[in-house]
Amino acid sequence: MVVVMEQRASEDEVQHIIATLVEQGFDVHRSTGALRTVLGAVGGNRSFDERLINVMDGVQEVVRITEPYKLASRTFKPERTVVAVGDVRIGGDEVIVMAGPCSAESEEQVETVAAALAGAGAKLLRGGAFKPRSSPYSFQGLGEEGLKLLRSAADRNNLKLVSEVMEIGQIELVARYAHMLQVGARNMQNFNLLRELGKTRTPVLLKRGISATIEEWLLSAEYILSGGNTDVVLCERGIRTFERYTRNTLDISAVPVVHKLSHLPIIVDPSHGIGLRDKVAPMARAAVAAGADGLIIEVHPDPDHALSDGAQSLFPGQFDRLMAELRIIAPAIGRSICVEPVPRRGWGA
Amino acid sequence: MVVVMEQRASEDEVQHIIATLVEQGFDVHRSTGALRTVLGAVGGNRSFDERLINVMDGVQEVVRITEPYKLASRTFKPERTVVAVGDVRIGGDEVIVMAGPCSAESEEQVETVAAALAGAGAKLLRGGAFKPRSSPYSFQGLGEEGLKLLRSAADRNNLKLVSEVMEIGQIELVARYAHMLQVGARNMQNFNLLRELGKTRTPVLLKRGISATIEEWLLSAEYILSGGNTDVVLCERGIRTFERYTRNTLDISAVPVVHKLSHLPIIVDPSHGIGLRDKVAPMARAAVAAGADGLIIEVHPDPDHALSDGAQSLFPGQFDRLMAELRIIAPAIGRSICVEPVPRRGWGA
Amino acid sequence: MVVVMEQRASEDEVQHIIATLVEQGFDVHRSTGALRTVLGAVGGNRSFDERLINVMDGVQEVVRITEPYKLASRTFKPERTVVAVGDVRIGGDEVIVMAGPCSAESEEQVETVAAALAGAGAKLLRGGAFKPRSSPYSFQGLGEEGLKLLRSAADRNNLKLVSEVMEIGQIELVARYAHMLQVGARNMQNFNLLRELGKTRTPVLLKRGISATIEEWLLSAEYILSGGNTDVVLCERGIRTFERYTRNTLDISAVPVVHKLSHLPIIVDPSHGIGLRDKVAPMARAAVAAGADGLIIEVHPDPDHALSDGAQSLFPGQFDRLMAELRIIAPAIGRSICVEPVPRRGWGA
Amino acid sequence: MVVVMEQRASEDEVQHIIATLVEQGFDVHRSTGALRTVLGAVGGNRSFDERLINVMDGVQEVVRITEPYKLASRTFKPERTVVAVGDVRIGGDEVIVMAGPCSAESEEQVETVAAALAGAGAKLLRGGAFKPRSSPYSFQGLGEEGLKLLRSAADRNNLKLVSEVMEIGQIELVARYAHMLQVGARNMQNFNLLRELGKTRTPVLLKRGISATIEEWLLSAEYILSGGNTDVVLCERGIRTFERYTRNTLDISAVPVVHKLSHLPIIVDPSHGIGLRDKVAPMARAAVAAGADGLIIEVHPDPDHALSDGAQSLFPGQFDRLMAELRIIAPAIGRSICVEPVPRRGWGA
Repeated sequence: MVVVMEQRASEDEVQHIIATLVEQGFDVHRSTGALRTVLGAVGGNRSFDERLINVMDGVQEVVRITEPYKLASRTFKPERTVVAVGDVRIGGDEVIVMAGPCSAESEEQVETVAAALAGAGAKLLRGGAFKPRSSPYSFQGLGEEGLKLLRSAADRNNLKLVSEVMEIGQIELVARYAHMLQVGARNMQNFNLLRELGKTRTPVLLKRGISATIEEWLLSAEYILSGGNTDVVLCERGIRTFERYTRNTLDISAVPVVHKLSHLPIIVDPSHGIGLRDKVAPMARAAVAAGADGLIIEVHPDPDHALSDGAQSLFPGQFDRLMAELRIIAPAIGRSICVEPVPRRGWGA
Repeated sequence: MVVVMEQRASEDEVQHIIATLVEQGFDVHRSTGALRTVLGAVGGNRSFDERLINVMDGVQEVVRITEPYKLASRTFKPERTVVAVGDVRIGGDEVIVMAGPCSAESEEQVETVAAALAGAGAKLLRGGAFKPRSSPYSFQGLGEEGLKLLRSAADRNNLKLVSEVMEIGQIELVARYAHMLQVGARNMQNFNLLRELGKTRTPVLLKRGISATIEEWLLSAEYILSGGNTDVVLCERGIRTFERYTRNTLDISAVPVVHKLSHLPIIVDPSHGIGLRDKVAPMARAAVAAGADGLIIEVHPDPDHALSDGAQSLFPGQFDRLMAELRIIAPAIGRSICVEPVPRRGWGA
Repeated sequence: MVVVMEQRASEDEVQHIIATLVEQGFDVHRSTGALRTVLGAVGGNRSFDERLINVMDGVQEVVRITEPYKLASRTFKPERTVVAVGDVRIGGDEVIVMAGPCSAESEEQVETVAAALAGAGAKLLRGGAFKPRSSPYSFQGLGEEGLKLLRSAADRNNLKLVSEVMEIGQIELVARYAHMLQVGARNMQNFNLLRELGKTRTPVLLKRGISATIEEWLLSAEYILSGGNTDVVLCERGIRTFERYTRNTLDISAVPVVHKLSHLPIIVDPSHGIGLRDKVAPMARAAVAAGADGLIIEVHPDPDHALSDGAQSLFPGQFDRLMAELRIIAPAIGRSICVEPVPRRGWGA
Repeated sequence: MVVVMEQRASEDEVQHIIATLVEQGFDVHRSTGALRTVLGAVGGNRSFDERLINVMDGVQEVVRITEPYKLASRTFKPERTVVAVGDVRIGGDEVIVMAGPCSAESEEQVETVAAALAGAGAKLLRGGAFKPRSSPYSFQGLGEEGLKLLRSAADRNNLKLVSEVMEIGQIELVARYAHMLQVGARNMQNFNLLRELGKTRTPVLLKRGISATIEEWLLSAEYILSGGNTDVVLCERGIRTFERYTRNTLDISAVPVVHKLSHLPIIVDPSHGIGLRDKVAPMARAAVAAGADGLIIEVHPDPDHALSDGAQSLFPGQFDRLMAELRIIAPAIGRSICVEPVPRRGWGA
């Protein structure tokens, strides 16, 4: 922490700040300049609230100089982490695509989609069984029955399954079926949930909250990492801005920023990020071009009749075309994207 | 819903939209103008996702014309709701002040503060026993022991107690001690928690999420109301903007806006809204002048040594002065603020 | 500036940074800790772009420790500035109210409003002659004819006149009629305009841009001050956020923040800040309660037929009631508001 | 416009709204439902302020159903516009790259960069002669001398020149040297400037304001188009959000959104959008992958000593690598990027 004193700060005020910092375990270096005094404080308590100094008399500004997260930082671990979900490796040379419907709705829906996705080169099936809906009057998901359908379709098509957990009580159940547990944007700061996920050994896909800074997001990852679960993948899914035409503003720049600050892999969710089907493919291409380690995309065999988020779900044929485009883009940055997909059983779009 | 077709939309496209809407239970009124066709759709499913229409061919724009919430709206209940917390009535002529420390830390701390607050005219004691902290390395609260201390101090000083619940598993425990259950900003869209709170009969204080629109906030209130718990008080506590000097931007305009859209009472939390002690009093005065039904303020007997949020906590003496200022302001809008406080046992600041 | 090096930064990298800073005229203090090296740089060029250091090898973070503005800061001038507009003093004990129509439309409109405002206690007449409109198809103002009408009505009613200048070419003309020149939100960073205003000796009312940080706003004031014009009053008028119900979010917290950072007076414009008539009075009261040095409010004798911004203009009767409320609130913070207004010539609302 | 009445609106209130709309030239269609009355208003004045209806008694909500812009919309002109800058065509199959230093500083600097850029495949040289700087203490540009240097270097290297105009008085001068006039983000709503640019026949590059919605941006384009200048290219350059790590958040989604709403070409400025050199290339790739019609990138022969924006300028060697990556990406969406660049005169990086 660096404490910049006001020009007219008195010696007493300076001494009071120094005493307070020392009391909190900091080593304090004082630098008295022509115009003002600057104090450098190192060591001390990582969770110390620097605003306490900020409101003291004589203080002009306080600046924190260490990231509040540690295990998630590249300072701690310079080389990139590769997260293994079964035999799928996220964070390596291959760009990993996860896809599927917003919610599991029926056996036929899930199986149709899973077969199509596998055929096109996806590696994980995504699908919700418990849905967090902003309206109490909306479809809330199939629960365990949905998980069974999803896992069964995933297995038949050689896909891994990623599905969302909304509360502590669901972890055990979802982990029984899913290979990767998704934490939704609204739960990014549900710290009790994060702490419990830190105790499991199932990989976690941690979505960014719609108003979370990248620092807060990495701090949420830290909750999981500090519990001993090192398999965390971050997922950018759009932040809230003043722009009204799109549902959210997909922050593609989070990809290079996270790669600089952290060793954790980062994927992008263009479906939630943009919220309208016809803009999903451009944003998916943009994410891969920016260096994302993967994508998670909503695909539905019949989006017009989807029980949730149909408007942002691709038709399977659109997903096929997108994958073909991504195979051209990935090599530009020295990456690949499932080049030899499983031969697919035909179906139209 | 109003669907505006593109100028060059074909008749087939118009018919496809109409058929889709009818299938969803809407009555559709068609208005064919010189330039374009406009469809009005009424009735139908309140939770229908209008983006489904938005992505269809020939559609220029889709506009929802009913609020997605119902029970929380003034359309549903024109007269204002008064929420009773014991004998304290929130939403009536009196401006209700809740105050206390961020966290219960010790018996002495809690008792000292409670006596001071009661003496100055506060009606509810606030204080946390379970703390949601963005860093896993921060103080996490005293748990049930904290609740006991808080309730005991509240009772001795004739105050009601409001305390936060962070997850479903805590509801029963916290409700045993607190007269009002607080839902924190990060949990505003924890829908499972809201649904459970809808089943209790304890009043709920629902904080606005830092990036929640007012509409989303009212929709979260709807979750509680639709469960049968009609005692919901809203609390504005600052939204996230680009401004970097303050922690959040306290949206005082939420007060008149909520009063127009909803019958529910709304109070303001200037402590979290601004995050720095010296700006708390001006914002508290502003909230009352704008018509807020109450305030919730952090006060600590020794903020410099508080275990959490000390930087935004008032000294008791500052709280006294603030209450005196508020007593001048409230009559400007036909309201009062505890005019005859309990005689206080002396303590300095 | 404080430069925090990465833990693994090499000595060569440290030396390169030091050399660069010295070359830019900074004195550099080095502090080598157990974990990392921190460099403090003082003096140097105030306009040095610290991002240049930020992108150098081995650097973890760069933090500026002086405000980029100087003349506008309380460090430079600890006591508050009072700006005199004729005999009206802004920034003193009295809360100054400016009011009037968005645009001058006709002699009758202007005279009717001016008489009413003077009667209610306003001290400045506001009114536009040149209007910046976001649509090329909207009413663009009466030009010099409007200025004549406004000044004449102001003089007859013992008011001072504040009016907007949109470009350098208008300064001389507007200054011939107005006692105070307003810079609109969209021009807050029109630096050429600001520089020219620095050369005049007419007081300037500088509105905050809708996405300007408080720091940028003070930097814009610095442009005017550095030209030698010390009569600058700041005006908060709402910032752009994600909230969609209100036109902008009025940032009332800018009042105490500006009072802490700067010696310049700050007033609030609740009309543009909220954009809807029925929310103007609550926000005006909030601004005064927060300590604003004044208000600027749109009032129109017949808002339903106003050529611009009618929806946010008060009826004169509403303005009267608001002034009565403000007279109750101001004393709460030791201020007054025109206690003995000019006897008014009657007119209804 | 669609006016949704409150459920309890009286017939008198409905009639008053209808009368007001008819007075403004609208045709009004009334639809009386079981629960409420909805009015559809078509025709009328494009610049009518719908908030006037919004504040009337009995009105629940007002929704505008036509874009406020016309000439910029795809409704008006369905096929995409190709803007010709000399022999360079923006908006066609080729992705056009503009590059150069933030400011012209010296003949050597400009010539070195121009030669390198031409060699790498850029088609326009960018460079400022008049700089809008947020601090009055920063370098303000070389003026006409800078324009001469830039044009001369552009000509020698077969590039077109794009340069910024900051005010009306500069248009004639800049247009004498530049083939394309840039309007900076801070001037996006300088309507007088836009109107004058509408009268010229030089192509305009219109940057998005940092807090401008896409609708406002298109409305600013409308100002230019309505003056008769149809050669407008839009440029996304980052919007202001709460995220603090990056200077702005580059809104890549503006590319597909603008392509849907408007026929005008859109390019992306990753240098200002992200503000830090090491993130420029990923964002440039993302923009092309999303379908941008071009890029504008800051390149400097010696960024560490640039007089402005050095931190976000690429080294020439980095620009070469980026162009090579883009040549792989463009074909993924059926586009090309200068395949046969002018043979370059060697220089390192």
